[in-house]
Amino acid sequence: MTSTPSPVHVQATDADDQPEPTAELEALYQAFESELLVPLWTEIGDLMPVEPKSAALPHLWRWRNLLPMAAQAGALVPVGRGGERRAIALANPGLAGRPFATPTLWAAIQYLNPGEDAPIHRHTQHAFRFVIEGEGVWTVVNGDPVAMRRGDFLPQAGWNWHSHRNLSDQPMAWIDGLDIPFQHYTGSTFFEFGPEETDEIREAPPRSYSERLWGHPGLRPLTHLRPTPSTPLLAYRWEHTDCALSGQLTLEAEGHPATVEPGHAAVRYTNPTTGGDVLPTVRTEFHRLAPGTETATQQEVGSSVFQVFQGTGQVTVGDTSWTVEQGDLFVVPSWQPLSMTSEHGLDLFRFSDAPIFEHLHLDRGDQA
Amino acid sequence: MTSTPSPVHVQATDADDQPEPTAELEALYQAFESELLVPLWTEIGDLMPVEPKSAALPHLWRWRNLLPMAAQAGALVPVGRGGERRAIALANPGLAGRPFATPTLWAAIQYLNPGEDAPIHRHTQHAFRFVIEGEGVWTVVNGDPVAMRRGDFLPQAGWNWHSHRNLSDQPMAWIDGLDIPFQHYTGSTFFEFGPEETDEIREAPPRSYSERLWGHPGLRPLTHLRPTPSTPLLAYRWEHTDCALSGQLTLEAEGHPATVEPGHAAVRYTNPTTGGDVLPTVRTEFHRLAPGTETATQQEVGSSVFQVFQGTGQVTVGDTSWTVEQGDLFVVPSWQPLSMTSEHGLDLFRFSDAPIFEHLHLDRGDQA
Amino acid sequence: MTSTPSPVHVQATDADDQPEPTAELEALYQAFESELLVPLWTEIGDLMPVEPKSAALPHLWRWRNLLPMAAQAGALVPVGRGGERRAIALANPGLAGRPFATPTLWAAIQYLNPGEDAPIHRHTQHAFRFVIEGEGVWTVVNGDPVAMRRGDFLPQAGWNWHSHRNLSDQPMAWIDGLDIPFQHYTGSTFFEFGPEETDEIREAPPRSYSERLWGHPGLRPLTHLRPTPSTPLLAYRWEHTDCALSGQLTLEAEGHPATVEPGHAAVRYTNPTTGGDVLPTVRTEFHRLAPGTETATQQEVGSSVFQVFQGTGQVTVGDTSWTVEQGDLFVVPSWQPLSMTSEHGLDLFRFSDAPIFEHLHLDRGDQA
Amino acid sequence: MTSTPSPVHVQATDADDQPEPTAELEALYQAFESELLVPLWTEIGDLMPVEPKSAALPHLWRWRNLLPMAAQAGALVPVGRGGERRAIALANPGLAGRPFATPTLWAAIQYLNPGEDAPIHRHTQHAFRFVIEGEGVWTVVNGDPVAMRRGDFLPQAGWNWHSHRNLSDQPMAWIDGLDIPFQHYTGSTFFEFGPEETDEIREAPPRSYSERLWGHPGLRPLTHLRPTPSTPLLAYRWEHTDCALSGQLTLEAEGHPATVEPGHAAVRYTNPTTGGDVLPTVRTEFHRLAPGTETATQQEVGSSVFQVFQGTGQVTVGDTSWTVEQGDLFVVPSWQPLSMTSEHGLDLFRFSDAPIFEHLHLDRGDQA
Repeated sequence: MTSTPSPVHVQATDADDQPEPTAELEALYQAFESELLVPLWTEIGDLMPVEPKSAALPHLWRWRNLLPMAAQAGALVPVGRGGERRAIALANPGLAGRPFATPTLWAAIQYLNPGEDAPIHRHTQHAFRFVIEGEGVWTVVNGDPVAMRRGDFLPQAGWNWHSHRNLSDQPMAWIDGLDIPFQHYTGSTFFEFGPEETDEIREAPPRSYSERLWGHPGLRPLTHLRPTPSTPLLAYRWEHTDCALSGQLTLEAEGHPATVEPGHAAVRYTNPTTGGDVLPTVRTEFHRLAPGTETATQQEVGSSVFQVFQGTGQVTVGDTSWTVEQGDLFVVPSWQPLSMTSEHGLDLFRFSDAPIFEHLHLDRGDQA
Repeated sequence: MTSTPSPVHVQATDADDQPEPTAELEALYQAFESELLVPLWTEIGDLMPVEPKSAALPHLWRWRNLLPMAAQAGALVPVGRGGERRAIALANPGLAGRPFATPTLWAAIQYLNPGEDAPIHRHTQHAFRFVIEGEGVWTVVNGDPVAMRRGDFLPQAGWNWHSHRNLSDQPMAWIDGLDIPFQHYTGSTFFEFGPEETDEIREAPPRSYSERLWGHPGLRPLTHLRPTPSTPLLAYRWEHTDCALSGQLTLEAEGHPATVEPGHAAVRYTNPTTGGDVLPTVRTEFHRLAPGTETATQQEVGSSVFQVFQGTGQVTVGDTSWTVEQGDLFVVPSWQPLSMTSEHGLDLFRFSDAPIFEHLHLDRGDQA
Repeated sequence: MTSTPSPVHVQATDADDQPEPTAELEALYQAFESELLVPLWTEIGDLMPVEPKSAALPHLWRWRNLLPMAAQAGALVPVGRGGERRAIALANPGLAGRPFATPTLWAAIQYLNPGEDAPIHRHTQHAFRFVIEGEGVWTVVNGDPVAMRRGDFLPQAGWNWHSHRNLSDQPMAWIDGLDIPFQHYTGSTFFEFGPEETDEIREAPPRSYSERLWGHPGLRPLTHLRPTPSTPLLAYRWEHTDCALSGQLTLEAEGHPATVEPGHAAVRYTNPTTGGDVLPTVRTEFHRLAPGTETATQQEVGSSVFQVFQGTGQVTVGDTSWTVEQGDLFVVPSWQPLSMTSEHGLDLFRFSDAPIFEHLHLDRGDQA
Repeated sequence: MTSTPSPVHVQATDADDQPEPTAELEALYQAFESELLVPLWTEIGDLMPVEPKSAALPHLWRWRNLLPMAAQAGALVPVGRGGERRAIALANPGLAGRPFATPTLWAAIQYLNPGEDAPIHRHTQHAFRFVIEGEGVWTVVNGDPVAMRRGDFLPQAGWNWHSHRNLSDQPMAWIDGLDIPFQHYTGSTFFEFGPEETDEIREAPPRSYSERLWGHPGLRPLTHLRPTPSTPLLAYRWEHTDCALSGQLTLEAEGHPATVEPGHAAVRYTNPTTGGDVLPTVRTEFHRLAPGTETATQQEVGSSVFQVFQGTGQVTVGDTSWTVEQGDLFVVPSWQPLSMTSEHGLDLFRFSDAPIFEHLHLDRGDQA
């Protein structure tokens, strides 16, 4: 039944293979335009390339540049109702000046002065915080105060009420990741302002309610037995991440399979109610390259943003290479080859839009 | 644990609530720009509206205008390798002249002269054909020739080889629907040219292999027991669709629940291996309004394209109303209210991007 | 990590390898008994055999013997509240006289005289009817009258109200299949009597409401979009089954893959809301052997009951062989090898408990 | 369509409502018997009761009786190939002397002397160990040595190679739970002997490889991203269970919802790749009653075995009540009402066959 033909690789082009330009054709094209029509044959090279060509470009933002600007915004720009957050977003140079790190992902540095609050709101956009340095802010989610500390990952599923409070005497900055561009593009975003009063935190608890309920490996409270699309665990602490990664490298050293490739340990943050991604549209991972590691080159459908957590290394995305250091953020557009090396060790946080493709069976493995 | 605050509806604005413009702030904004950064507080009104605001606009294309232009293209533009298809796409007036009916969906009229072939290729974009009039073309999918006739719906899942052959002595036009804009935007598209030789069809079989295997209600061949993301049934014939819709209206008349609302019958085309949508990213349905029917107003996350199959009626999308007739195509952007009435009866084919939102838990029902 | 040892096949035995019998051991065994304890080491050969050893035996029941006894029951035994149904069950010779065809499955002939009703009740046991001959009875499910005719398959999911009414002037007999033994054994059965009044059927409709809603290939009413564990389609008509099987054999003859093996066509009855089995615990299929066909030998975890619908053939189950003809029923216990041949063609209805094993990942494919 | 009748509760009976005994009827019954047939109308009261009537009975086994007998078996019965394990099973008084705690579940005490090994084998039966006291034994699973200590729960999915080694100078006893009766009854069991040589353990590692890979809350190794039907985590340590339960009671004391009911904390052991049960056929949980707690009465489809881990309390199952203390095991048959009270606090381990019913949609919630 399936007489699969052997494919012939022809070059798709925009300009070539076009019909002879004539007055009649020109008239037809004008008629198309006036009727809001566009022919496929003039667009196919752009619309249906042989492999993905993202408008986004590989790009690197330096933490040493970002942080002072955020501090400057802290001095000049109030935080409060209306603007809602003192967040400054990465704008990919291929995406027309929009505050989009990739076509689907938002990445921003958020900054809160001592004693400041970011007001309560909720939105359908899925969000997370990742803390590269500092502490002292609590994110309050539906009344549950979640401490933020270096190395912590805090997922924040859509449509939950949340605010941020700096209870310390130091400013704090961190990274926000969201699917704002995706929801903006697809027209699926709702937003609601919360009450004006700040969430009351009597004290500053070291562990959130959610961690006390959900932060035990493989143990599920009997009060919460249904799978939820997003994780109920509101903080993934650095001590666990660090321990899991060290563990993989030790297992590897003992001769057991545990790492992605030699010297390359990695974990995915998961939803304990399903084992899947923490958020329906955003994947988050932590990667550790042991000193002297050189990764294989990877290509995947969908885009990623990485932030260097600690260490240094060389990163190559497509034709671009950078030497990276703590706090630096870089973008890997869809299908751009990525490789990394590190002489002295490199820890990286990563987020991507991979769940979108997997849920829709558009991840390449599925189709190749 | 969840001290849900009672929401307060404040108006989000772009211009209001901005920090006092000063020289320092201006300098900061310039620094942002040079570092490829954009603050949230100037963009939030656009990016995070209270409810979806699609860039796409409601719009109607008249079949009586489309068809002659397609015929004219048939006279002037050859079909073959390079341009691949003589397809002319609807370009939503809100989407900057791109050939996108909505942010995610492509809708085009395709036209094939007697004896013409559209060459073999495959792509990750999911596609379908819907036939508003005529017959005589066979779509050949992996070697299986599928006849196209008025009222038929032919899904065409991504990455299957396919071509079209007009075996008749009449030209034929039909509607193509694809997820080209979505895959273009997300960077997930692959494309491959097939061999130059046309698929050989010895005769013009009335039923495809796929229908002979899969076209029996509730019966599954024992050779194909795994669920597949897309439907293996390559044609959904008009006689079945028509009979299902008539059946619903008769059941309603007999006092049994069967219709969506009084006088409004509707079926969804489904994948017999899962009961879900025929394609991972595209939903397809057929709606029938009995004479004198007035639908309730509906709002949903995600965009739709409708084509009138037969009959006449009044359609209102947001603030726009049209009188529609056979072949007319119109667009319903995300969250725009839709209502329809028909004095003499109205049959409509519909496709939408709803599976994207349901798979990602972004459909509104899930979040409200 | 997984230092998989190479397995050594040792014969497990009950009697061998037992500890030396001594007075002390005897005393210990008596102490076990008085405390309601049983050691593993005396039982392991029975409990943990190298491969499944079902208590059930291969057995054949002849239709030409069953039908006259059912008719005699029709003369002597009333049908009504209390006994509920005039059903006579196959009692596997290995299962201690219980009315169990296999450890999990019930198979019975049911008989209804002209004008008789079997009263309304419901139970958690999943059921179906398969009609080997005759017509004139309607099964009424939640008020929906479903005609029963030769070759029809009528699934009847648990906990739906149902009765049977013979509206003709002829007696009618058919086969009931249920998961009574499984639910009895596991303690999961509930039962409820319905009202005394018979379901009113004004006329004897040729098609049930369910067929008018659900009996269209690949089309789903928009009023019923959630998957249900059991099929909403209450009749799978012979004309469709016959057509699907003929179609497979014709496709095979034309050189296309469509049959399980040469000359062996087969369909599975499926739930259109999921593509899976019609009932959560019972799989149902129809097999056709073209004249001259010899099947491969099959072994599978779980038990089956077959009924010959038409034709003749030779069936071998384990060490037992029979020549079978129309209406004959035979049992294939778990893991017993099955093969069949037919000189002149053979049509068989089959039901099994396979979904139990697949849902629990105990089907052998999964573990081997 | 669904004219749901209002149910009438009639008493189902075996003896009543039977046809008048006559010579003809007697002859028919004899004919049934000789043809291996059994009528429904004489059996329906037993087979289709109004609610589940399990053959199993509520029963309690005292640890203070079990443990000395196991020690005595340690003195008299060797462990090794053939008998395979020195395990002594609970035989429910309602189940005809078979070593079945319930119709589906096996529960046994296993005993290993200092320096002893239980040989390598594998089987499709799903198993776990729960440790009520002692330590010093390592279970070796596919070469991964897993330490066993008081309070630890060790799942052991079917078809993995495993052995037990006592590396200490003390005997050790623990509880084995398996689905032996279920797989025996359904005919789905396979068994394979491993090599004669014992698994080599160079040292006695405190943490298994599996814990080092999987024992981090919400973190998944990138090398293992597919869901597996059974948990890859081979030990759930007491310290985590204890902490989770204490946490729930503290949250409750602070006014947050966290417990099943006042004073009743509970966790379910789950598979981190799915969030579901650790084994496809066996559910495992740990319950803690704070001092002074009285549970509500619970009824559920399916059977359970409880073991008291520490503390004391009163347990009522159906019409039977016991005062329980450390190590005691008791059985709750399907649909028998269970309630518990504790004056000074009670910790209980529980296992049940609930996943069988949930996977098959036979859990009562689904049908009621």
